[in-house]
Amino acid sequence: MIIQLEDKIKPNDRNNVIEVIEALGYKVTEVKTQRCNYLIGIGKREFDIRKLGNQAGILDIHRVSDDYKLVSKKWKVKNTVIDLGDEVYIGNGELAVMTGPCSIEGEEQIKKTIDHLVENGIKIMRGGVYKPRSSPYSFRGLGIDGLKLWYEYARSKGIKIVTEVMQVSQIEPMLPYTDIFQVGARNTQNFNLLDELGKVDKAVMIKRGISGTIDELLHSAEYVFSAGNEKLILCERGIRTYEKASRNTLDLNAVPILKEKTHLPIVVDPSHGIGIRNHVAPMALAGIMAGADGIIYETHEKPEEAYSDGQQTLDFKESAALNKKMKEAYQLVSNW
Amino acid sequence: MIIQLEDKIKPNDRNNVIEVIEALGYKVTEVKTQRCNYLIGIGKREFDIRKLGNQAGILDIHRVSDDYKLVSKKWKVKNTVIDLGDEVYIGNGELAVMTGPCSIEGEEQIKKTIDHLVENGIKIMRGGVYKPRSSPYSFRGLGIDGLKLWYEYARSKGIKIVTEVMQVSQIEPMLPYTDIFQVGARNTQNFNLLDELGKVDKAVMIKRGISGTIDELLHSAEYVFSAGNEKLILCERGIRTYEKASRNTLDLNAVPILKEKTHLPIVVDPSHGIGIRNHVAPMALAGIMAGADGIIYETHEKPEEAYSDGQQTLDFKESAALNKKMKEAYQLVSNW
Amino acid sequence: MIIQLEDKIKPNDRNNVIEVIEALGYKVTEVKTQRCNYLIGIGKREFDIRKLGNQAGILDIHRVSDDYKLVSKKWKVKNTVIDLGDEVYIGNGELAVMTGPCSIEGEEQIKKTIDHLVENGIKIMRGGVYKPRSSPYSFRGLGIDGLKLWYEYARSKGIKIVTEVMQVSQIEPMLPYTDIFQVGARNTQNFNLLDELGKVDKAVMIKRGISGTIDELLHSAEYVFSAGNEKLILCERGIRTYEKASRNTLDLNAVPILKEKTHLPIVVDPSHGIGIRNHVAPMALAGIMAGADGIIYETHEKPEEAYSDGQQTLDFKESAALNKKMKEAYQLVSNW
Amino acid sequence: MIIQLEDKIKPNDRNNVIEVIEALGYKVTEVKTQRCNYLIGIGKREFDIRKLGNQAGILDIHRVSDDYKLVSKKWKVKNTVIDLGDEVYIGNGELAVMTGPCSIEGEEQIKKTIDHLVENGIKIMRGGVYKPRSSPYSFRGLGIDGLKLWYEYARSKGIKIVTEVMQVSQIEPMLPYTDIFQVGARNTQNFNLLDELGKVDKAVMIKRGISGTIDELLHSAEYVFSAGNEKLILCERGIRTYEKASRNTLDLNAVPILKEKTHLPIVVDPSHGIGIRNHVAPMALAGIMAGADGIIYETHEKPEEAYSDGQQTLDFKESAALNKKMKEAYQLVSNW
Repeated sequence: MIIQLEDKIKPNDRNNVIEVIEALGYKVTEVKTQRCNYLIGIGKREFDIRKLGNQAGILDIHRVSDDYKLVSKKWKVKNTVIDLGDEVYIGNGELAVMTGPCSIEGEEQIKKTIDHLVENGIKIMRGGVYKPRSSPYSFRGLGIDGLKLWYEYARSKGIKIVTEVMQVSQIEPMLPYTDIFQVGARNTQNFNLLDELGKVDKAVMIKRGISGTIDELLHSAEYVFSAGNEKLILCERGIRTYEKASRNTLDLNAVPILKEKTHLPIVVDPSHGIGIRNHVAPMALAGIMAGADGIIYETHEKPEEAYSDGQQTLDFKESAALNKKMKEAYQLVSNW
Repeated sequence: MIIQLEDKIKPNDRNNVIEVIEALGYKVTEVKTQRCNYLIGIGKREFDIRKLGNQAGILDIHRVSDDYKLVSKKWKVKNTVIDLGDEVYIGNGELAVMTGPCSIEGEEQIKKTIDHLVENGIKIMRGGVYKPRSSPYSFRGLGIDGLKLWYEYARSKGIKIVTEVMQVSQIEPMLPYTDIFQVGARNTQNFNLLDELGKVDKAVMIKRGISGTIDELLHSAEYVFSAGNEKLILCERGIRTYEKASRNTLDLNAVPILKEKTHLPIVVDPSHGIGIRNHVAPMALAGIMAGADGIIYETHEKPEEAYSDGQQTLDFKESAALNKKMKEAYQLVSNW
Repeated sequence: MIIQLEDKIKPNDRNNVIEVIEALGYKVTEVKTQRCNYLIGIGKREFDIRKLGNQAGILDIHRVSDDYKLVSKKWKVKNTVIDLGDEVYIGNGELAVMTGPCSIEGEEQIKKTIDHLVENGIKIMRGGVYKPRSSPYSFRGLGIDGLKLWYEYARSKGIKIVTEVMQVSQIEPMLPYTDIFQVGARNTQNFNLLDELGKVDKAVMIKRGISGTIDELLHSAEYVFSAGNEKLILCERGIRTYEKASRNTLDLNAVPILKEKTHLPIVVDPSHGIGIRNHVAPMALAGIMAGADGIIYETHEKPEEAYSDGQQTLDFKESAALNKKMKEAYQLVSNW
Repeated sequence: MIIQLEDKIKPNDRNNVIEVIEALGYKVTEVKTQRCNYLIGIGKREFDIRKLGNQAGILDIHRVSDDYKLVSKKWKVKNTVIDLGDEVYIGNGELAVMTGPCSIEGEEQIKKTIDHLVENGIKIMRGGVYKPRSSPYSFRGLGIDGLKLWYEYARSKGIKIVTEVMQVSQIEPMLPYTDIFQVGARNTQNFNLLDELGKVDKAVMIKRGISGTIDELLHSAEYVFSAGNEKLILCERGIRTYEKASRNTLDLNAVPILKEKTHLPIVVDPSHGIGIRNHVAPMALAGIMAGADGIIYETHEKPEEAYSDGQQTLDFKESAALNKKMKEAYQLVSNW
């Protein structure tokens, strides 16, 4: 059960509402986000909703049968639009495109990539400065200094930044330079990180776990939302299966299923989803047809020289062509 | 190594060629299909290809590094087109659509479905008369009589038939009434069935195994081809994974990967691939974007009354709308 | 619902019983096995069991809530013992050991293997004469002649034979020379093969599908049982997962779960289950601890020269040592 | 390449060694653990090992072809023994048993569990005070206060504590009260957490990821070791597969494979591995046969009243019986 409270509800009224819900046998969690105050009631007993409805200070009451509550479409039918400022949106009825290299490598690379984005009307740049690597001896990214450098150039051209945060202690230093905090596939169930990202007023994009279920992804989003942050995006990036002809198995089924279950925007990552450069473009288009609100893919001036993920990275020419085609595809599916 | 022989090669020349290849340490399999005679040489020793090239009766020689040979794109760059007669093709640059019910249920249902196909310009009807069922107590299909009835109406309207064959003994009785023999996901590695289907002059569509790899699917096709039948179609229909929010995980990655590896046409089955009626249409469109030559999906006048698979079956109105949209999508991707 | 009928029930009484059950809204399947006559009623309506109980000709009535019926432990609490003749049993409270090569290769190999079995008190020899191979160009086994040769030597030493049957047409020729028909992992859901194996009076061992569920394995057994053959054994041989450090993932969880669900004996195949020679022995012992009634593993005089599966095959010395240790392990778990 | 340095190597000699290695084209990581100083060289160029061998200050040089280095058995053939103090060991040739509840619930429960351990000669108690929960609305554990309470009773009875740490900030407060830090299956690739655990002088037990590979588990251990902590234990706890008859698929194949690849002790968790109370005991025994150095399982005075995981928790009577049987099984396999 989700109870939306009036903004200026009196403390006394608030306590009264909580008392009534608890008396019904519900466990109450108080949630305050950028947008609204909520009470989440977890319980199963049937009751007469009018008992609650006439309490002072209540805006609205929603019964939600899903285990996740705040991210469910059952109470919020209208899709969430993420506003990144400067008229850059995700989920507003236009295709959101995010591209850039796997790793931020240096000034030259940043500049060239941003030029490519600007030329093609792309507003959001991806890139890693903290890289999760399975071996401790691999390149782990340029860190905060790389991010600052990147931010400087990006802002000067009106480009927004999406980049991965790996741990709680990185949030604060990254905050001024990040538009979208990306939670990587290995951290989808790093609940402490999710809790802390609930406290910032920046967008958060949660990637599906390496073998995460759709349901777990929604619960991870519920962590962030219930900790106070409604600016959430979910990302399908492929799951781990027995099939080894592709890096991951891009589960595009997840797109229409998520669109039915949640009001949050859905982004597809075909680069990690298939892991083969030649096949990134068709999978990006397939993602759009499946219903994605946005596509995130890897591009680099010279993929064969990229520090990481070169095998699944488009060059700028391929990226430009894909970008054009994606718009046509999005157009086609929007008229449906 | 694939050696294409001249049609009228003299028996003596043929034996000479075989002798030379075997002398090179290769194991030889003789293949005679509807289209051509081949010798397949399996071995690894390097040799001077001119030793072979000047033998009498040889049309062409191809080295193929893949484990599968005849279905590989490495020797046959031009895509295979399946000609079903009456100007019905698969893989000829137009989208091939196959639709119909899960199970053939009776005359009334056959007629209504065929009317639906004719109205929408669809040329191939799917339907099961032999149903593989995990429980022995479930409905197992109308059998050969159902097929005959279906064939009568289909032919009168110029509609082609794709239907599942479950065992060797069914092939002969089904032969006159079947245009495409479908090998189901549980039979992808029923090698005896594949061997026998290699001996008929009808198209064969092999579905990917329930947890079959892309490589295994190609090897299964190699069975049919090397037994004499080149009229092959491959079908992605979803794989089994840990994710239970959908019936299967439709692995659209398989489409561009298969298109790169083989010259055979690829069909996508979004009905089994996601298993949720509301989401069949977006996944069909996604399949087209991924590069499919055809789409097979389930439709029924009244899905809720279908003998089987009603939960993933479109009604005729949904089917007509999807059919129209699929053509636009195929158009968009063809211009790419 | 399972209704056991009296052996000499009068046709009239039989018809009366069927009529009553059908009147209750149940679909009836008549089953006649080597041991008993049954009626299987599939339906859900609640009814007063006394309505049935006083019908003439009924031995017993069992409600079975599982979807599979005859293989369920819910009606037959006592475990099934397979009697292969000559005092060779499976499931009788002693560990059943089956060993031998992957493929039967010839007289010499047969003799030496049988000598090894005799020396170690092993009564059942495994070996393939029909080999399912993913490539059509691989060795497919010695066929029926190999089986006859093998049978001759085996019988002279009192050894029983377990070997794979791949298709319906092989059953009849194999019948006189086979003690246990093995259904391979690729044929677990070859329902026509299962149906036909229901008609023979020989034991049948069904391997779990390559990615088959425990539930599907039980349903496959139900096919054979309901077609008339109670002499059934189930075999866990590893499933396909993302993990590639082993050939398959031996799912020993399946052993206690199956033992709880069915009265049929359970055999574990550690050779295919892990696919690494050095690790076959510990996994065999683990299988026994998990509750297996028998172990099937591959052995060969010279594993490195075996036609197939050499990488997972024990030599005779390793086999002898394992065999001894397995008996100790079985002893330990039997006293539990 | 691993270079073990002399304890009192002169700074100058150390720099010389590093210079030589880097000159060979190797990237050097300096590692200082509780036990030794190492240099890890990552590179591929072949070189004459004598060029290094005669440098001052070098104890030993090992080439290690695995991607992970310090945890590999290729350089350290003798198995690692974890010494927890008070003569409690893991990996010393006796079975290490860890048991206790899923969640620490309070004083009464702690006392009773410790009594049960003492009575049965079990030295290590498991229990969670920080609980990773997929829903933010679930019970998340008693936290540090629960740990302190637990520690007080445990120490008074000589019992060691293994408990999960979920994030970096918990390490310091937990340190005085924890004998083994457990890294849970959702944190196996939380690289920052692993880095930090490399800095403490307490044992760390890393659970395999929910769908983690064996290789990833070894790399995660390499993180901790290369950050300075050699006191490492690996735990197989089941992986996620398509099979839903059990909570997870306990991959006992991993045990002999890990024992061959690494010198670290291996523990098996049958409670999470199968998730069904009745079947925990056979899977524990199976784990021992597979080669485990220890078993961790859940026990509770009244499993049906446990805050969490009751369905897979043994009561004290079952636990005592299992403990006795495990010793016999370990004995049997040790004599092998």
